[in-house]
Amino acid sequence: MSTTNISLEDIYQLAFDCLTKAGADQANADAVANTVMCAERDGSVSHGLFRIPGYIATLNSGKVNGKANPQPEQVTPALVRCHGQNGHAPLAISRSIEMLAQSAKTCGIAALNITHSHHFAALWHEVEALAEHNLVGFACVSYMPAVAPAGGSEALFGTNPIAFAWPRPNNTPLVFDMATASMAVGEVKIAARDGHKVPMGTGLGPNGELTDDPAEILKGVLLPFGAYKGSAIAMMVELMAGPMVGENLSFETKQNDNADGGPPQGGEFILAISPEIMGGSDWANHAEKLFAKLEAMEGIRLPGSRRHKLRADNSPRAVNSDLIEQLKTLAQ
Amino acid sequence: MSTTNISLEDIYQLAFDCLTKAGADQANADAVANTVMCAERDGSVSHGLFRIPGYIATLNSGKVNGKANPQPEQVTPALVRCHGQNGHAPLAISRSIEMLAQSAKTCGIAALNITHSHHFAALWHEVEALAEHNLVGFACVSYMPAVAPAGGSEALFGTNPIAFAWPRPNNTPLVFDMATASMAVGEVKIAARDGHKVPMGTGLGPNGELTDDPAEILKGVLLPFGAYKGSAIAMMVELMAGPMVGENLSFETKQNDNADGGPPQGGEFILAISPEIMGGSDWANHAEKLFAKLEAMEGIRLPGSRRHKLRADNSPRAVNSDLIEQLKTLAQ
Repeated sequence: MSTTNISLEDIYQLAFDCLTKAGADQANADAVANTVMCAERDGSVSHGLFRIPGYIATLNSGKVNGKANPQPEQVTPALVRCHGQNGHAPLAISRSIEMLAQSAKTCGIAALNITHSHHFAALWHEVEALAEHNLVGFACVSYMPAVAPAGGSEALFGTNPIAFAWPRPNNTPLVFDMATASMAVGEVKIAARDGHKVPMGTGLGPNGELTDDPAEILKGVLLPFGAYKGSAIAMMVELMAGPMVGENLSFETKQNDNADGGPPQGGEFILAISPEIMGGSDWANHAEKLFAKLEAMEGIRLPGSRRHKLRADNSPRAVNSDLIEQLKTLAQ
Repeated sequence: MSTTNISLEDIYQLAFDCLTKAGADQANADAVANTVMCAERDGSVSHGLFRIPGYIATLNSGKVNGKANPQPEQVTPALVRCHGQNGHAPLAISRSIEMLAQSAKTCGIAALNITHSHHFAALWHEVEALAEHNLVGFACVSYMPAVAPAGGSEALFGTNPIAFAWPRPNNTPLVFDMATASMAVGEVKIAARDGHKVPMGTGLGPNGELTDDPAEILKGVLLPFGAYKGSAIAMMVELMAGPMVGENLSFETKQNDNADGGPPQGGEFILAISPEIMGGSDWANHAEKLFAKLEAMEGIRLPGSRRHKLRADNSPRAVNSDLIEQLKTLAQ
């Protein structure tokens, strides 16, 4: 694969220009471009510039409103809701996180429901934003059917990621963000593009057989991580990001989508918890005792540490050259 | 294995008599005996009468206060805390669930922290109790180190179960309750007792090697379900049921325990969510669309359905005969 070095500023600008060219207003283009730049910066390539053609497709098809003006509302002291006005999710999320954080600092625990928005980004953004408030964050989202329930061979669940952040005052938070699928669709697509195999157990081919060929899995179905237990968690995400917040299940999302290749409409459930109110003033020092034990074990890395290490490096990133050329054309 | 048929009433009474004989008062003995009877009734044998010798050991050793009088307190409109007064957990939980449910019905979301109590039971009790209020329930608890983080070979995490319940008005709820270990310690113990093998990947023997012999794993260490992803969830439970609620991490629990064989002190985090407030009045019908899809798939069973089917049968249960004789002696 040929790559081109491109600065973080230029990654942001390229994304921003593509989005405004396709009809997004400043606020929406800024929120999405920032999300995409952060993904490239942190090495989360499958959520970086790779996603821009999909974002643009939804603006061009009219499925997504590039001028959405989402406003969070305080439903109860512990519940914030934000109707996404049919826009891309990043603006709805960034406008709502502060209200969620304040609610959690008052009540000890609070939730944010994002509805009527279009999700195409990683979830660590929002849980890290909560961790910066010294709050514990949890988020989940569903998507289009791509994963068969354990024991089945037909797609019903989305890749249904969950993310969790634990704040570490004066340090980067501990964060994980993972598909409840054995692998994220974006990773399978990149493996297929780059000609890599994937581990057996990742998914089934179009005839229901196990395969290590990502191209076959993209024609077939992914499996959940961790067999029946992972499947139960994938189902929990369907319910939490769907009926619990008043949004679609993955299979409904697909039925309602116009198949333009970009993110469909879906819901997101975000939880914020104050460990200070719940557990008392020693919470941070206390948790460090667990992290010290983990770090003392050979071969164990704290979740999120690779991304945070990459983040500290502001130098240009190597991005697929064909993708950059494609985006430059789209931006003009 | 020789078994004896024993009625549900006699299971309760045998447990109750053992506990009061060992010094528990009526309220505490009733709460624990009810939990044990429900486990036997629902086929959750590893949490049934099998646990009574452990409960009794903690009363005999003085580690657990059999006369604890826990009282829940409303910390914020969305947060309930219950100091367990060093008793067994069932009484603290049963006394706090109603306050938690009312908080969730007011705020849309609420949490309950149980501290200073001793956990030895399944978690589906408390999440099902929330589902009976038409609330979504989530619970997690940590325990003594028995599980190595993925990539390691030294026990650090407890088996750290998580439970989830989704209410189904006019039906039994959808419930899962699972260890984030590949298998619960109780199941490994029963496999060892009955001479069964366990699947490879369940755990490591005392020298860090993979084995299918449950007796070797009991001398070694369990592994998390689902490799790195399951390990991340096990870590989340350590934090949520530990520092987040002001209670011990699993490794601290072990350091503080007197090794009497019964449940050590630990924390529990319980979450209750009103889908009515969050998602609107269609939440229940909406979720049924997912369950209908799942039930239409060959070989897929909704989580919890086996237990609920067993529950409908009030006939006597077949219990290990040696265990019954042991408990009858302890009750006298």
